[in-house]
Amino acid sequence: MSTDLFVGIDLGGTKINTVLVDPSGRILNQDYRETQAREGPDAVIERMLDAAFRVMAGANVLSTQVRAVGVGAPGPIDIRVGMVGSPPNLPGWFNVPLGHRIASALEIPTFLENDANAAALGEHRFGAGRGTRHMVYVTVSTGIGGGFILDGKLYSGATGGAAEVGHVTILPHGPHCGCGRRGCLEALASGTAIAREGAELLMRGVPTRIAELAGGDPGRVSAKMVAQAAAEGDVEAQEIIDEAMMYLGLGMANLVNLINPEMMVIGGGLANMGDVLLDPVRRTIHRRAFRTAADAVRVVRAELGDNVGALGAAAVAMAAVK
Amino acid sequence: MSTDLFVGIDLGGTKINTVLVDPSGRILNQDYRETQAREGPDAVIERMLDAAFRVMAGANVLSTQVRAVGVGAPGPIDIRVGMVGSPPNLPGWFNVPLGHRIASALEIPTFLENDANAAALGEHRFGAGRGTRHMVYVTVSTGIGGGFILDGKLYSGATGGAAEVGHVTILPHGPHCGCGRRGCLEALASGTAIAREGAELLMRGVPTRIAELAGGDPGRVSAKMVAQAAAEGDVEAQEIIDEAMMYLGLGMANLVNLINPEMMVIGGGLANMGDVLLDPVRRTIHRRAFRTAADAVRVVRAELGDNVGALGAAAVAMAAVK
Repeated sequence: MSTDLFVGIDLGGTKINTVLVDPSGRILNQDYRETQAREGPDAVIERMLDAAFRVMAGANVLSTQVRAVGVGAPGPIDIRVGMVGSPPNLPGWFNVPLGHRIASALEIPTFLENDANAAALGEHRFGAGRGTRHMVYVTVSTGIGGGFILDGKLYSGATGGAAEVGHVTILPHGPHCGCGRRGCLEALASGTAIAREGAELLMRGVPTRIAELAGGDPGRVSAKMVAQAAAEGDVEAQEIIDEAMMYLGLGMANLVNLINPEMMVIGGGLANMGDVLLDPVRRTIHRRAFRTAADAVRVVRAELGDNVGALGAAAVAMAAVK
Repeated sequence: MSTDLFVGIDLGGTKINTVLVDPSGRILNQDYRETQAREGPDAVIERMLDAAFRVMAGANVLSTQVRAVGVGAPGPIDIRVGMVGSPPNLPGWFNVPLGHRIASALEIPTFLENDANAAALGEHRFGAGRGTRHMVYVTVSTGIGGGFILDGKLYSGATGGAAEVGHVTILPHGPHCGCGRRGCLEALASGTAIAREGAELLMRGVPTRIAELAGGDPGRVSAKMVAQAAAEGDVEAQEIIDEAMMYLGLGMANLVNLINPEMMVIGGGLANMGDVLLDPVRRTIHRRAFRTAADAVRVVRAELGDNVGALGAAAVAMAAVK
């Protein structure tokens, strides 16, 4: 058996996805389990370690055959010291040196990266962005995150805080964002933003298909329901989607004028909408970005699906040990 | 005499500034002349060549002692082919292979870069940004431009169009911009934007100190007059400055969340306002950017003054030949 294997661990608020892969990204074994985040960091780290041991043992792989472990975790992360804040979906995590804890328990070099950066590296190494030199990855789901591959390498910035594409101000006096500021892209174009706008229609008593789908309960409105209502011809729902896509396009056009990438890879739950999401983004880029830069960028859908985080974490480990 | 010399040429809409430098950036000779842009590209290129010959001849330097020439020119530039559009202040320039023309006439390798990118490289190599790994340069004058130094190198993007920081949309339905779009940072926070807001006060008949400074003529209002009126206590003028600085701060905060630089170097005519400009930018960065990233960045004034373009062009040449 090869001694050139890697473990990738994707730590999410609800699930931990762990893979054992070879250098080509082929998944040799996988473990998928609940995070049970409410039990706090120590219990969650035990669960991550157990998952790592299991993917190795289940494939008859010794820890000495694994060159490195990569971990993708929700930000804020200061790559110099570990996790520096409590992500909303991981209560109790503050200044947790997650990489060090995993490394010392497994006795395998371990590298920590924020989840969106890891996903960007995954799509670049194994997915839609293979072979590109400058690539922007954007994930649109309940939140909006991103990662930059520049000159073929992950660009993390001075403290690992680069590419926070969801927290660029798009509308200075716009709606409040989960980050505490206002008018961020995430507050305008994420699944959460779309659901919030849908719920508001119900609260204002506007008759829409969304109300039927949600059983009249604003608290039950999801982005999926708004998208479904729009697909069924509901005009109000379509306006919500159109506005969100316009803002998303604006955010992407800004990235084209700043990063001038060859490729923009869009992932996350909302990317499942396909061209309904990608076409408005492409149009706005051509309307809002400089022509040479707009002509140079291909906007495509991510390829790795639910495994993007774990494969990305493995790619972080591979890039770290070269 | 050394054979490790460089020529830097800064091509502007009104002036051509040409320097002969040693590898440390010491200026051995300099030529400063009018562009006379209305005469078109051929005449202007002749003038650039004459300036290059003169800085060499005046220092008794043969062209064989010059390793490379750098040229900074207004965008849009596609570094793959040369200048691809007509900058508003250089009429008649379209698809001009400027680098090739200079190189073949001087018989010295010549490297073309857009002026803001060249200036960024100049401040990084010889100015305020010496020794930094990740640096953002922003120039605020009649327009707003910028350049990114990432991992110690100029980041130009796929086609040389990166770091167009003046043409990021800050206010989706905001004022028209010279680039043809709306609500760009340049349309909100440049000298041109400040002058436009000042002129509007006069057109609406608002009594302000600006009107006195401009002799009552809206067409004569400059950003300098607005700044002077504000400094003398004019409330309306102060509001214009405050709003422009708020937008500038927003744009810079967005860059902190995207690039996570160690240092942000602010140059251009408006940077002469010093802390009046820098302090609101620093405050907005701390209010709008993530804390780890905001704490990690120093916002400082550029150091190279009027020679930033020419020294930057020389730095482009040095970086190209290493």
